Amino acid sequence: MGIMPVLNDEVPDEGDYDASRRRGEFDNITPDDFIRGSDGGNPPGWLDSSEIDDLRRKMPIVYVEVVPVRADDFGRISKVGTLLHVGPDGMIERTLICGRVLFHESLREAVARNISKDLGDIALPLLPVSLQPFTVAEFFPTPGVSEFYDPRQHAVTLCYVVPIAGDCKPQDETLDVEWVDPVEVRRPDFMAQMAGGHGEILRRAIGWAG
Amino acid sequence: MGIMPVLNDEVPDEGDYDASRRRGEFDNITPDDFIRGSDGGNPPGWLDSSEIDDLRRKMPIVYVEVVPVRADDFGRISKVGTLLHVGPDGMIERTLICGRVLFHESLREAVARNISKDLGDIALPLLPVSLQPFTVAEFFPTPGVSEFYDPRQHAVTLCYVVPIAGDCKPQDETLDVEWVDPVEVRRPDFMAQMAGGHGEILRRAIGWAG
Amino acid sequence: MGIMPVLNDEVPDEGDYDASRRRGEFDNITPDDFIRGSDGGNPPGWLDSSEIDDLRRKMPIVYVEVVPVRADDFGRISKVGTLLHVGPDGMIERTLICGRVLFHESLREAVARNISKDLGDIALPLLPVSLQPFTVAEFFPTPGVSEFYDPRQHAVTLCYVVPIAGDCKPQDETLDVEWVDPVEVRRPDFMAQMAGGHGEILRRAIGWAG
Amino acid sequence: MGIMPVLNDEVPDEGDYDASRRRGEFDNITPDDFIRGSDGGNPPGWLDSSEIDDLRRKMPIVYVEVVPVRADDFGRISKVGTLLHVGPDGMIERTLICGRVLFHESLREAVARNISKDLGDIALPLLPVSLQPFTVAEFFPTPGVSEFYDPRQHAVTLCYVVPIAGDCKPQDETLDVEWVDPVEVRRPDFMAQMAGGHGEILRRAIGWAG
Repeated sequence: MGIMPVLNDEVPDEGDYDASRRRGEFDNITPDDFIRGSDGGNPPGWLDSSEIDDLRRKMPIVYVEVVPVRADDFGRISKVGTLLHVGPDGMIERTLICGRVLFHESLREAVARNISKDLGDIALPLLPVSLQPFTVAEFFPTPGVSEFYDPRQHAVTLCYVVPIAGDCKPQDETLDVEWVDPVEVRRPDFMAQMAGGHGEILRRAIGWAG
Repeated sequence: MGIMPVLNDEVPDEGDYDASRRRGEFDNITPDDFIRGSDGGNPPGWLDSSEIDDLRRKMPIVYVEVVPVRADDFGRISKVGTLLHVGPDGMIERTLICGRVLFHESLREAVARNISKDLGDIALPLLPVSLQPFTVAEFFPTPGVSEFYDPRQHAVTLCYVVPIAGDCKPQDETLDVEWVDPVEVRRPDFMAQMAGGHGEILRRAIGWAG
Repeated sequence: MGIMPVLNDEVPDEGDYDASRRRGEFDNITPDDFIRGSDGGNPPGWLDSSEIDDLRRKMPIVYVEVVPVRADDFGRISKVGTLLHVGPDGMIERTLICGRVLFHESLREAVARNISKDLGDIALPLLPVSLQPFTVAEFFPTPGVSEFYDPRQHAVTLCYVVPIAGDCKPQDETLDVEWVDPVEVRRPDFMAQMAGGHGEILRRAIGWAG
Repeated sequence: MGIMPVLNDEVPDEGDYDASRRRGEFDNITPDDFIRGSDGGNPPGWLDSSEIDDLRRKMPIVYVEVVPVRADDFGRISKVGTLLHVGPDGMIERTLICGRVLFHESLREAVARNISKDLGDIALPLLPVSLQPFTVAEFFPTPGVSEFYDPRQHAVTLCYVVPIAGDCKPQDETLDVEWVDPVEVRRPDFMAQMAGGHGEILRRAIGWAG
């Protein structure tokens, strides 16, 4: 199996125009941008901030969330991967791989693109044969409506566990990828580092995997 | 179990302002409308057509699709329900229950609301305990990209089988609800009446149910 | 929906020949017994203890395990049911509904029969439309091989969540059915009362249901 | 990922004592045999025919069934594998990978062992992360009870789709492994070659994979 042919045009490298942008702003791409960008106004690949913010207040946004794992030859999870990065408050945060599905992008492409964005191009993810997610997490902009909270938007997030067969080099704003034993994950101090309900998604992934 | 307390405010009754509107236009509601509507401009509950059309060209839209069934006391499907209505070309079409998830609406609310819209308020649907869908259908506005085609939009559709315990009175533009034996569903002439890939969703539902 | 027509012939009532038998011995029925029983030798409905014990040492035994829940009109779990009974050491134990699948019995029949055995005949279980289990628990007679341990046997257990719409009257050796809020279930003291891995099955059920 | 360390001791090679035995007889191994075999009577690895036949009439037998597939880098099924062998009537039959779960063997071990038995030791199967099967097929010895019929026994069969990354060399009684496009599988003449309900399992696999 060769290197995953992810949609690299859409993944800005270091040194690109977006190098100084904050994590998550990459979510804001829409197809219009690619078209509009060519006339010299906006840089290509980005929706105007106010426009994407407007969309986020009008309808639910489709997301995929990926729990990267190392699996042994029998398919059992040996390690669970989480991403470390610096949060808006300067604290280290622990997250999973998570991103918006773009217009006319398939779920499989979105899963592959977001893995490549966070883990690099030689991670060799083994995507699931079925798109039946292990859970669907509904993030609401109002705290307390569900276990999942996202102040920016109402997101409907399809969650998948994806074995990673290759090497990971953290990309984008990710400081490091940390691989831990599945039993470690249930430790309260570990869970406390995962805000917004992403720890609950991880817990469900491990329960579902068995 | 009492009558399902669906969000009736959002379901226009016969005689309402929308009585003459075509099927599917109901999909266009956004929360803004409820707010804006009160100042006397637009009727409440509707986004401007051009606005919703604009959204549909910018991002994937979250849908739920429901296969209504009659189940026996052991949970086995005894009948599968399909909806008959007049298509844009004046022909009878066969569909499932399908609708957009509104901003800040949960998937469960969307499932209940759409069932109520098509089958009436005393259908007594038994919603699934888990939101894990039996399949996720990706509709693209470009024919041939997937088995699912919707000229209006890119829709990511979470599909559920829902047993119906009560009585159905077809609502909205639905002419009739037809209940057929699951084995009938595989007949080519039956499938030929279900356009856009909805027949494939029904086939998967029956395969998944076993 | 009428009263579930469970296989009452197979469910001994109070006062039956088995009134003094210990919990779990009911598992030992095989079809042979019904046949053999009629000639006046063994009481009908029971395999010779040594015979069933012999089978348990030779091959994996198929089980179903049911997490009974109360669900609201939107399918959300409002309460989780657990069974209390006196364990072999005289202590109160907390369990789920669990039983062997008999020869020539379907999984649906086994689920219905075991619910009826523990919760009575007017529990009105709403059996799932699909037999896809939320988890498969593998119990081994050797501690530590998996999270699930059963000293008697190697059991392959298909696990289902089943909403209960009717009234429960504890049957058999069950002292009581206790309904608790799903968040209570994660409390360590609650989990500590569920031996052999049944707590883990309950945890997975709640995570899967969302 | 290295070569799958399947339980080769249990897989007789060509030239072994079982070379002349018919397909399926391998199913009859029980742990007792390994013990008994050492005293020089029976060849090791086989239960006495009458003994296993006796078990098959007394309780349901746990099976795994595997649909081998070739998947592309996005996890989509590109080819579906079926096995060709000569049936008892001398006709070519088409089957899937299917075998009994042995006492004290995990489901994952049974899946790996049965793949190795039919496809050889360098097939490099990518076992699923979760043991949640896409379907559970109940085979009964009575025709017509379900879609699945096995004259020998009542089998409860957990079904999985497994991508095969390596090379296949047909083993045992398998004449050939044929890889076909998923759309070919629905052709009536293809399905007609798969007896006993295995075609229905294949159909469900493809529907579930999407």
